[in-house]
Amino acid sequence: MGFSYIVYPGAHHTRFHHALGAMFLMQKAVQVLQSKGVAISIKEEEALYIAILLHDIGHGPFSHAMENSIVENISHEQISLLFMENLNQKFNKQLTLAIKIFKDEHPRKFLHQLVSGQLDMDRLDYLKRDSFYTGVPEGTVNAQRLVTMLNVKDDKLVVEEKGIYSVENFLVARRLMYWQVYLHKTGIVAEQLLVRVLKRAKQLTAQGVDLPASDNLTFFLNNTINLNGFSDEVLEKFSSLDDYDIISGMKMWAGNDDFVLGNLSRMLLNRDLLKVKVKSEPFTTAKVKEKRSKLEEKYHISEDEASFFVFTGKLENQAYSMEKDTINLLKKSGKVIDVAKASDQLNLEALSKSVVKYYLCYPKNNTISHRG
Amino acid sequence: MGFSYIVYPGAHHTRFHHALGAMFLMQKAVQVLQSKGVAISIKEEEALYIAILLHDIGHGPFSHAMENSIVENISHEQISLLFMENLNQKFNKQLTLAIKIFKDEHPRKFLHQLVSGQLDMDRLDYLKRDSFYTGVPEGTVNAQRLVTMLNVKDDKLVVEEKGIYSVENFLVARRLMYWQVYLHKTGIVAEQLLVRVLKRAKQLTAQGVDLPASDNLTFFLNNTINLNGFSDEVLEKFSSLDDYDIISGMKMWAGNDDFVLGNLSRMLLNRDLLKVKVKSEPFTTAKVKEKRSKLEEKYHISEDEASFFVFTGKLENQAYSMEKDTINLLKKSGKVIDVAKASDQLNLEALSKSVVKYYLCYPKNNTISHRG
Amino acid sequence: MGFSYIVYPGAHHTRFHHALGAMFLMQKAVQVLQSKGVAISIKEEEALYIAILLHDIGHGPFSHAMENSIVENISHEQISLLFMENLNQKFNKQLTLAIKIFKDEHPRKFLHQLVSGQLDMDRLDYLKRDSFYTGVPEGTVNAQRLVTMLNVKDDKLVVEEKGIYSVENFLVARRLMYWQVYLHKTGIVAEQLLVRVLKRAKQLTAQGVDLPASDNLTFFLNNTINLNGFSDEVLEKFSSLDDYDIISGMKMWAGNDDFVLGNLSRMLLNRDLLKVKVKSEPFTTAKVKEKRSKLEEKYHISEDEASFFVFTGKLENQAYSMEKDTINLLKKSGKVIDVAKASDQLNLEALSKSVVKYYLCYPKNNTISHRG
Amino acid sequence: MGFSYIVYPGAHHTRFHHALGAMFLMQKAVQVLQSKGVAISIKEEEALYIAILLHDIGHGPFSHAMENSIVENISHEQISLLFMENLNQKFNKQLTLAIKIFKDEHPRKFLHQLVSGQLDMDRLDYLKRDSFYTGVPEGTVNAQRLVTMLNVKDDKLVVEEKGIYSVENFLVARRLMYWQVYLHKTGIVAEQLLVRVLKRAKQLTAQGVDLPASDNLTFFLNNTINLNGFSDEVLEKFSSLDDYDIISGMKMWAGNDDFVLGNLSRMLLNRDLLKVKVKSEPFTTAKVKEKRSKLEEKYHISEDEASFFVFTGKLENQAYSMEKDTINLLKKSGKVIDVAKASDQLNLEALSKSVVKYYLCYPKNNTISHRG
Repeated sequence: MGFSYIVYPGAHHTRFHHALGAMFLMQKAVQVLQSKGVAISIKEEEALYIAILLHDIGHGPFSHAMENSIVENISHEQISLLFMENLNQKFNKQLTLAIKIFKDEHPRKFLHQLVSGQLDMDRLDYLKRDSFYTGVPEGTVNAQRLVTMLNVKDDKLVVEEKGIYSVENFLVARRLMYWQVYLHKTGIVAEQLLVRVLKRAKQLTAQGVDLPASDNLTFFLNNTINLNGFSDEVLEKFSSLDDYDIISGMKMWAGNDDFVLGNLSRMLLNRDLLKVKVKSEPFTTAKVKEKRSKLEEKYHISEDEASFFVFTGKLENQAYSMEKDTINLLKKSGKVIDVAKASDQLNLEALSKSVVKYYLCYPKNNTISHRG
Repeated sequence: MGFSYIVYPGAHHTRFHHALGAMFLMQKAVQVLQSKGVAISIKEEEALYIAILLHDIGHGPFSHAMENSIVENISHEQISLLFMENLNQKFNKQLTLAIKIFKDEHPRKFLHQLVSGQLDMDRLDYLKRDSFYTGVPEGTVNAQRLVTMLNVKDDKLVVEEKGIYSVENFLVARRLMYWQVYLHKTGIVAEQLLVRVLKRAKQLTAQGVDLPASDNLTFFLNNTINLNGFSDEVLEKFSSLDDYDIISGMKMWAGNDDFVLGNLSRMLLNRDLLKVKVKSEPFTTAKVKEKRSKLEEKYHISEDEASFFVFTGKLENQAYSMEKDTINLLKKSGKVIDVAKASDQLNLEALSKSVVKYYLCYPKNNTISHRG
Repeated sequence: MGFSYIVYPGAHHTRFHHALGAMFLMQKAVQVLQSKGVAISIKEEEALYIAILLHDIGHGPFSHAMENSIVENISHEQISLLFMENLNQKFNKQLTLAIKIFKDEHPRKFLHQLVSGQLDMDRLDYLKRDSFYTGVPEGTVNAQRLVTMLNVKDDKLVVEEKGIYSVENFLVARRLMYWQVYLHKTGIVAEQLLVRVLKRAKQLTAQGVDLPASDNLTFFLNNTINLNGFSDEVLEKFSSLDDYDIISGMKMWAGNDDFVLGNLSRMLLNRDLLKVKVKSEPFTTAKVKEKRSKLEEKYHISEDEASFFVFTGKLENQAYSMEKDTINLLKKSGKVIDVAKASDQLNLEALSKSVVKYYLCYPKNNTISHRG
Repeated sequence: MGFSYIVYPGAHHTRFHHALGAMFLMQKAVQVLQSKGVAISIKEEEALYIAILLHDIGHGPFSHAMENSIVENISHEQISLLFMENLNQKFNKQLTLAIKIFKDEHPRKFLHQLVSGQLDMDRLDYLKRDSFYTGVPEGTVNAQRLVTMLNVKDDKLVVEEKGIYSVENFLVARRLMYWQVYLHKTGIVAEQLLVRVLKRAKQLTAQGVDLPASDNLTFFLNNTINLNGFSDEVLEKFSSLDDYDIISGMKMWAGNDDFVLGNLSRMLLNRDLLKVKVKSEPFTTAKVKEKRSKLEEKYHISEDEASFFVFTGKLENQAYSMEKDTINLLKKSGKVIDVAKASDQLNLEALSKSVVKYYLCYPKNNTISHRG
């Protein structure tokens, strides 16, 4: 959930809790499918549980912010895979099947789809959980009913025809959660501030500045890690890195002499965030430059420094993708059909269009302290 | 809810409970609007509460079934109005303003829209209530949040712009409730059986058969009442007519000699309903005829008698109407815009298309008892 | 729930729904016990489900009111048993084991305790259900957790030691439901009125008055049925008797010439009930006589007639009985101990004292219409 | 909630959220009392909100653990008061009335009772909230109904008589929350480990060892602060101390050479806690000595060092106190009576007895690493 708790103060639930919940739903799904005659061996069942329990283990603290600052060009799925392979060595190859399913290399595609697909146990759990803890009831999904209506046809996951309205509701609820919660402008600003705090800390470290930080964090500030550099030792350090390292670091940096690092850290710790405007059209370069210039003048800082406080970005969400892994309905006739095509009002086809919005962040008056 | 409890056994809540709930939401709405500076006088406030409390008073037992059998060509709204006018006489013209609002004759249109519109307190309450009691959580709506985002512009009801996803969710939830609950095929069959039980009872009564029934029910079997015939005396009788009259009547008719009346009453009381097929294309006359012929042969009955057991009909729902009373958003700029046009994915425009389905009902084997 | 809906308008749930819920809990209980190594054969399992599904089938309409008017000296449990025996004949002795369990004649006592005991599936379901539908959340019980902590020791039902606080909570919640809901004075008055309506109707019928009523109801008005008289034919009639017969009867009697029958029926139908006072001491005969005298004078009626409108009664509840079927805890040591003795504050022992309250009912001014 | 999340993984809600909830209930309480004619001035209302919002501000990270280690002989209430007085200076005496109420120096005693008493808004919120987030539904309280039944008599808070069962339920629910959640043995062990980590860190610091820690934490390790020493500067430091300082400190200490500090920190971070036994009788000194001796031998450590891993303690809870601030019922007659005396089964009197349990903690095999 990253910084959603700034907007929704109840949203303090953990990734651990989510993993347990997704595991619970997976158990239900296995029961349902077996009761419908789908053969799932004990080995496959165990592998499903391992895969769903570990699917998010590669998330660092403040997950998405990390992927763009502490490590480079690595997704959390790739890191989850590194953890699984590491555990596979320690546990005498017992995770081999789970890894195959996770990587979608198993011939029975529905096993992968249960772990990672448009209607997987991950999504069902996090939508229900996040809706519950944020207090945004419109975002809830009827996970229990959706699981009950799953089936398998030609080794692919399908939903029984009569579940069509529940699937529609699931997609609309998910869309709402994206715009109302995950892409809420205040949460996005906080995340972007954190990305910039860490980026600045790395810049300063590279320039030889000795920033106070925990050992683990210091390691990632000093080293630029991409996928190749992710040795077992790095993985160990990554696994020890948590919210405490990041927040404690910022607490120490809030008094730092560097104009950028000090101000960004203070703003984030004090929840005194940037202003943000959201539009459906991109902001012009001129507009950004104008805002930056004002800041440069006011605080006597460089354009590069100003760019940490004034920046634009893009928010994007596609409620339903008709391209790759569609949600398929199983008709009573045995025919399988994409849910978007089965819907009686073309409303799902409408939902498959990607929606893009643009934001511009810039400081409020009096948020920033003058340089030293 | 009519016969929905046959499918959803928890759905036994009452119209009285719904009236209280809608009244509660109306009180919230008045509070919200007043806190935003919308002037609502004490007289108008009182009128709103009267109008919402009485908006459904014209519903007879098994509401929609009644409108097509016991009375003729009269909607429950028209009967509600008759009750209000009747009460207005008794209460010394104190309901005059409420009636004006109910009939949409008040210049401040939002007052009527709160009672009867695309986002009125009636709908907000019944969707939430029916979702709760049926156990169909996907159908729930966040009534509290929707009410909080109401406002008035140029005397018309609007929703603040940031409420757009909640409105979308409301429309999709409503659509789901229609297809999953209100238009559920089993409930529809039961309702159609009741319509035919009452129609047959009126036919027999007209032919001089003396059917046992309560005094109130006997009156409506003996008389064909349209809007003009709805005297105060008739209104009094109508108000005394309840589920107990109808069900007790059927219990007495279940043993009746008339093949149609006896069988239909027994089927409904024993929940041994007709089979029903639903398609998106109409059923051909030939198909209906074929089914009826079989029945005629098997039971030695006339085509007219068979038509009580084999019939087709149409189910129709429009999730959102762009034609008359649209739901309007109030943008920050002060501009007002139809929610369907404001939506970023055209999905609401898709929802404004009417969806029609067709059903065919016919008896299962061995449901019907042979004649005498 | 009888007339609880007069106080709690959401309380319209049905006995059918309750039977399904109790059945669901029984399935959970069987799963839990089997997972702990308690042997339950397929036959025993099936018998448990039959017994719990049918445990309440002997309830007539407005259950407890019936036991004291329409039939004489027969409890609903005895009638449930008659139904089971009747079905046992029809179903080729397949209910024999269920009946044995229901009658507590099976050597494995815990089977009976699951159906009928201080912590049976019946109570767990109705407390949770009634709390939910009345909106009295303090009365809810954590049925799921209690079931999870069940076990069997020496063929008797026990609760694992760590469940002690949940059991305490269960007993206190049940006590609250009794005083707040089941014994709520308004519901009690309504029930007592119904008992008197039916008693009067039987009196008048015995005197030769021809009261309009459905065939089924007429039978019970004409005949005094005790346990011996409960032939299969009577059982058939009893099973057809429902709320519709009773309420329709009262609707016809509301205009009756008999002062008592007419007024009582009207009062109940119009929810214009008697006043009621509740005290911890009995009301004196003098007090009752005084109230009756006033009525006799005012309406020129006999003392016998007045006694239908002015009467006293007793409300009694024992939150926990230490005498017969106690709730036993299984300690880690394997020892079994009565929960009241295990409790660390003697508060459960306090709860085993019976609490008695007394009520006096009498008419409000202007409730009763003058004779003729 | 301290470490309750180790047992109940959903229990990650914050003190900030609790303060908002208690404030919300206070607003309801003010509304209810005013509607019953209790005069509450705008100044008093504002003071109530300030007092309830700030009532817990003196809690440090892992609250109760702090009171016994980082500071000495100071309760969080005393620190809350220091904060309020500090804010009172900054805000130009605007908190004077709130402080008076908080300290119970205002003549209208009910104002204090709403903030801090046996049925205050603090308790109502935290019981409901903790029950919700832990998923222990038996612990929930009907806060809304309890607030609705509040009244004031002779400037003291009372509950209307008919609320007696809700009060009983509140006391039993609270008792359950204590034994099931707040005093859960696993949470207690974790808390005791933290107390000992901090105590050891202070010992080592006093001996001149230079432990890595954040500036704030270092200050409290270096100084022994009692009430007199709590200057504005110390208060500032205390307010900056949070979970991040403590956990980050432990992460740095987990590798420390000191046998005690290193092992305790590791155990807590890895959730590899001590074993714990709970009894109603105290553990003998001999028993404790025996356990310690084993440890001394095995790891070649002193008795003092062993005492950090083997220790006993006391758990105590009194569900209801009849001594000081009782919960009083207002009878219809206007008489006021202690709820324990009004209860019809003496069960509340039973609940006023204090319950004491004793625990013994000691290490599992292989939890502790050998010295260097």
